[in-house]
Amino acid sequence: MGIYRLGYVQLRVTDLERAVAYYTNVVGLLETGRQPGMVYLKCWDEHDHHSIVLRESDSPGADRFAFKAENSEDLEIFEKRLEARGVRVKRRAEGESYAQGESLAFESPGGHTVEVYYRMEKVGNGLPFFNPDILLLNLKGIAPQHTDHILVTSPDPKQDLAFYQEVFDFHLTEQVVDFDGSVVGGFLERSHTPHDIAIYPGRAGGFHHVAFWVESWHEVARAADILTVNRIPIDAGPTRHNRTRGYTTYFFDPFGNRNEVFTGGYLPDRDNQPISWSIDTLGTFYWQSKA
Amino acid sequence: MGIYRLGYVQLRVTDLERAVAYYTNVVGLLETGRQPGMVYLKCWDEHDHHSIVLRESDSPGADRFAFKAENSEDLEIFEKRLEARGVRVKRRAEGESYAQGESLAFESPGGHTVEVYYRMEKVGNGLPFFNPDILLLNLKGIAPQHTDHILVTSPDPKQDLAFYQEVFDFHLTEQVVDFDGSVVGGFLERSHTPHDIAIYPGRAGGFHHVAFWVESWHEVARAADILTVNRIPIDAGPTRHNRTRGYTTYFFDPFGNRNEVFTGGYLPDRDNQPISWSIDTLGTFYWQSKA
Amino acid sequence: MGIYRLGYVQLRVTDLERAVAYYTNVVGLLETGRQPGMVYLKCWDEHDHHSIVLRESDSPGADRFAFKAENSEDLEIFEKRLEARGVRVKRRAEGESYAQGESLAFESPGGHTVEVYYRMEKVGNGLPFFNPDILLLNLKGIAPQHTDHILVTSPDPKQDLAFYQEVFDFHLTEQVVDFDGSVVGGFLERSHTPHDIAIYPGRAGGFHHVAFWVESWHEVARAADILTVNRIPIDAGPTRHNRTRGYTTYFFDPFGNRNEVFTGGYLPDRDNQPISWSIDTLGTFYWQSKA
Amino acid sequence: MGIYRLGYVQLRVTDLERAVAYYTNVVGLLETGRQPGMVYLKCWDEHDHHSIVLRESDSPGADRFAFKAENSEDLEIFEKRLEARGVRVKRRAEGESYAQGESLAFESPGGHTVEVYYRMEKVGNGLPFFNPDILLLNLKGIAPQHTDHILVTSPDPKQDLAFYQEVFDFHLTEQVVDFDGSVVGGFLERSHTPHDIAIYPGRAGGFHHVAFWVESWHEVARAADILTVNRIPIDAGPTRHNRTRGYTTYFFDPFGNRNEVFTGGYLPDRDNQPISWSIDTLGTFYWQSKA
Repeated sequence: MGIYRLGYVQLRVTDLERAVAYYTNVVGLLETGRQPGMVYLKCWDEHDHHSIVLRESDSPGADRFAFKAENSEDLEIFEKRLEARGVRVKRRAEGESYAQGESLAFESPGGHTVEVYYRMEKVGNGLPFFNPDILLLNLKGIAPQHTDHILVTSPDPKQDLAFYQEVFDFHLTEQVVDFDGSVVGGFLERSHTPHDIAIYPGRAGGFHHVAFWVESWHEVARAADILTVNRIPIDAGPTRHNRTRGYTTYFFDPFGNRNEVFTGGYLPDRDNQPISWSIDTLGTFYWQSKA
Repeated sequence: MGIYRLGYVQLRVTDLERAVAYYTNVVGLLETGRQPGMVYLKCWDEHDHHSIVLRESDSPGADRFAFKAENSEDLEIFEKRLEARGVRVKRRAEGESYAQGESLAFESPGGHTVEVYYRMEKVGNGLPFFNPDILLLNLKGIAPQHTDHILVTSPDPKQDLAFYQEVFDFHLTEQVVDFDGSVVGGFLERSHTPHDIAIYPGRAGGFHHVAFWVESWHEVARAADILTVNRIPIDAGPTRHNRTRGYTTYFFDPFGNRNEVFTGGYLPDRDNQPISWSIDTLGTFYWQSKA
Repeated sequence: MGIYRLGYVQLRVTDLERAVAYYTNVVGLLETGRQPGMVYLKCWDEHDHHSIVLRESDSPGADRFAFKAENSEDLEIFEKRLEARGVRVKRRAEGESYAQGESLAFESPGGHTVEVYYRMEKVGNGLPFFNPDILLLNLKGIAPQHTDHILVTSPDPKQDLAFYQEVFDFHLTEQVVDFDGSVVGGFLERSHTPHDIAIYPGRAGGFHHVAFWVESWHEVARAADILTVNRIPIDAGPTRHNRTRGYTTYFFDPFGNRNEVFTGGYLPDRDNQPISWSIDTLGTFYWQSKA
Repeated sequence: MGIYRLGYVQLRVTDLERAVAYYTNVVGLLETGRQPGMVYLKCWDEHDHHSIVLRESDSPGADRFAFKAENSEDLEIFEKRLEARGVRVKRRAEGESYAQGESLAFESPGGHTVEVYYRMEKVGNGLPFFNPDILLLNLKGIAPQHTDHILVTSPDPKQDLAFYQEVFDFHLTEQVVDFDGSVVGGFLERSHTPHDIAIYPGRAGGFHHVAFWVESWHEVARAADILTVNRIPIDAGPTRHNRTRGYTTYFFDPFGNRNEVFTGGYLPDRDNQPISWSIDTLGTFYWQSKA
């Protein structure tokens, strides 16, 4: 099977308690564990121990992101492919990372620290596996269902897009092209959604946003209401993306890390060619882009 | 009973056929009649002959707007009140206006031509009055259910607000106040919605927009999609108003007349005091106004 | 102005604490006061002290319902009209009813105890009247915005419909007719919604349901989720009414009093004739009624 | 990669023109081709030539359904696995099936004719691959985005569930168990949705329904409105499934073939155990199942 999905994103925050208050009360994630200087969080409908890790630091940003694969054979295959490309891989043993099994860590061409693991402690979604209900009561804030995707920047997105496709069998769903036709950004998926990771032109190791999935356009508005009542600055939206067709709101955590609530989008079939967008559509949303 | 609601708005357009194409195919109104240089339109769920009148002219804008009252006694009462204020009233007889009964016409303090009538030809909403269905098939475009409100400008909105309250028993639901507490704009209703007419500071006789009611926030997004596919410029939104709490998109007809799709809002109880807004919130929307 | 709207409904419950737990945690009303054997509740967006009163008793049902009018002149007019019909009116002085001013109480033709008042303590909706937000955080359960309407039964609905129209100037929006064309039920409004009170054939003084307004069809589904997680029996829905076009779910409080969540519907214009429904549509919903 | 998704379903209808009228005007599919006695249809957002095939016959039902795989190697692997189980496989060459490449056809343990192919004529979704819009204008009826899943019956669903998992690498997301714990039905996916095919106890070769994906719960209501206006009998819903959490309406084509509109559901992670349901929940929906 290979990569299942985006596993977790580790964010730097400059005030850990304030960050936890924001991510649990406003975004509505659930705290699942702590380590010195670190807090582990998950969306309510996720079963794995964490999908967001907060690390106290003196500047915001993303430390790393990780993909979950199926099994140890996947790790072996990926390790070989990485080494064949001359990428230095660090093996991390079971127990080295909190609540997580063995993993590979490496630096991507675009300068991101990326991890791949295949086992994480299962804490469940709070519903039984026998005759479950559909929702949890007493959730707070936006309460997204799962972490959806990450958008990062690279000085050479084309190189990164090739890297993730070749090493991890990602599928390119959409791409941004310059006026000469050269690729300057793209969207990659493993989970049959429009993207698990997107790469845009920008500084090496750069982080643009991490997105949380909500059920509907109605929930995107409700999220914006909750953000506004909590005086969280909204960067853009509610609006609709050109790329992915998704409904979205961008906003900032108290330290400047961009978050997104996202829903909608289409079912990307691997047997279709990618959609291409001209570079001048970068930064535009659908409803303001065509007139 | 007095005034029921906003009855119709007469807009100037510089190309009548292009205007009809836009208002029927994109907005999704239904054409109900023509006179030389004029086209009459209604929303599908309205029963009266027209709620929008298009008049061919050499510049855009609103010629006039009209309120529908209950009966001829209302007209008499309003006429007396207007004359008592020194407002010159023009009586228009049955048949003078297309598909409409007798009326009063006058100029408001803010310089708008306003009409009040109590009878208009009933053309129905296309559904029977016995065991009806809920919707019509084969509607085009946005297809709003009814014309909701108008926003006009006046050099002295306070004077206009008093005028409409005193002469026509409008109820003030919300107002905008300057830093010294003086009123600079407001929202008035007769139909138990947040507003049938709003008055903002600006030039005499000025027209800001006419709004069409759609069923839900979902329909506001669908309207924005339809506008975008048709390359209609969206002025703002989809977003949420501070005032009225309504969901909205502002856009322009091909001649620059601002249209709105609107839904939501609260049930304004006459026994509550009006909500006040500081003047610096003018032009802001809820989701971008608080952080 | 006369009657503004349905003011409050007093329900009998056989376990007051269990009732409060249900109406605050599941329905999501707010408790605003207590008297011996009585608890007072309101919807979050209502400004008056209460819209639901719970009274401990040995059987469920509705004790009474009340309309809010504008002022004491309204009460005098209504009193005269009632007495002219030979209805015995009981005047209740300021302070006789908790948090409420003077009122009229009487028995309707259909055997209901009805009250009309024009003043109730204002407790507000929790938002300021200056630059307010749009919503409250920390609401529980369904959290409807306001109490919408009541449906009661009468052995002779036609008589009741005439009574409310003649004495209180209600407007008939829809009616149910027998095969011989005689009226057997109907919907009456004062608040420019499809109904504030509906009367169906049934026993004298009978109570069918009280309805709470939610914002959208999405919220009707969410309400059904919340009811289900709380193991509240759903009587019907989510579905769509024939009459009113409203979206609805019927359910029962722990004592058998039927509640409804309701949204949608049209803007009923007083200048339109009422819609009529054949008697065989009683008890049907739109989506199952036509094929 | 193996199987991508459900590819097409071939339905028998007793009046081909009436069937085409229903599937294009009410369901809102697009006709893409004809062969003697056959009509080929697709959902607007699908790129392949067809996902529904109508065949004129003297009784309703499903002739066959097909999965789309990635390439010819997949077919070889599947052929070997099928033959290893003693299943007789029929190879169909390029051109034998209209608009479709070579395929395998066989009978499943449950008695269904199943086909696997990897190439179908691409007709596109009507949008360009460069700077596309988001939607098509002038669609009719419900206009679902894609064909979602099929539910079939088998005398021994457990055997079928094992068959599809072992031969085609399907993932079991949910199952129905008898009081003794034995499996009596289940849901299988390849497309990271709750199901591409579901198997319930029933007669060999039986067909329960084919489901079409719509964007939201709002669209499920709109679909029910469209069905009702067209006098199409609704079998159940709009309501919410226990299994998959999806929002749904079941209805019948004019010949008795059950159709579904479906949306919602969760992202089924392969690393989670399947959800189990007791047999007494069969035939229940979430909102009526728990009280």
